[in-house]
Amino acid sequence: MSFNIEIIGFLAATLTTTSFVPQVFRIWKTKEVKDISFMMYLSMFFGVSLWFYYGFLINSISMMIANIVSALLVLVILFFKKSYSKKE
Amino acid sequence: MSFNIEIIGFLAATLTTTSFVPQVFRIWKTKEVKDISFMMYLSMFFGVSLWFYYGFLINSISMMIANIVSALLVLVILFFKKSYSKKE
Repeated sequence: MSFNIEIIGFLAATLTTTSFVPQVFRIWKTKEVKDISFMMYLSMFFGVSLWFYYGFLINSISMMIANIVSALLVLVILFFKKSYSKKE
Repeated sequence: MSFNIEIIGFLAATLTTTSFVPQVFRIWKTKEVKDISFMMYLSMFFGVSLWFYYGFLINSISMMIANIVSALLVLVILFFKKSYSKKE
């Protein structure tokens, strides 16, 4: 696989992984989670966990790092969703 | 790459791609987007678009399909966020 292609993959991984950061900060600031879908982040958590395992199976360190970071950020959002949900 | 490893990748792609569906339905139903981070989905959109391009470069049809579907779902959420945001 060429060096240039791996730069695209690295850029893509950086964008998709760090995308969760502004959502974490928004909830951290507002303590509001009403419009957030729990099911989305639950499915995303199992998805990125499987991507991590896939990265492990194909010996891709970058996939393992990107997906373990994503899994942790998604876990924080799931925790926020449970903690800040008001009884409706 | 073995068949078993590709099953893990297929499962992972299915989970991460379909994870956006419950969020789309939630907004569709409630018309509420206040707690959703625009920056998250903007970064996610560019990220999955680059993953699509990466899939194209390495000739992975499954990566191209998974990421074009993700990009479309993320685009719907971005459109909802802009449409349903109230002036604060």
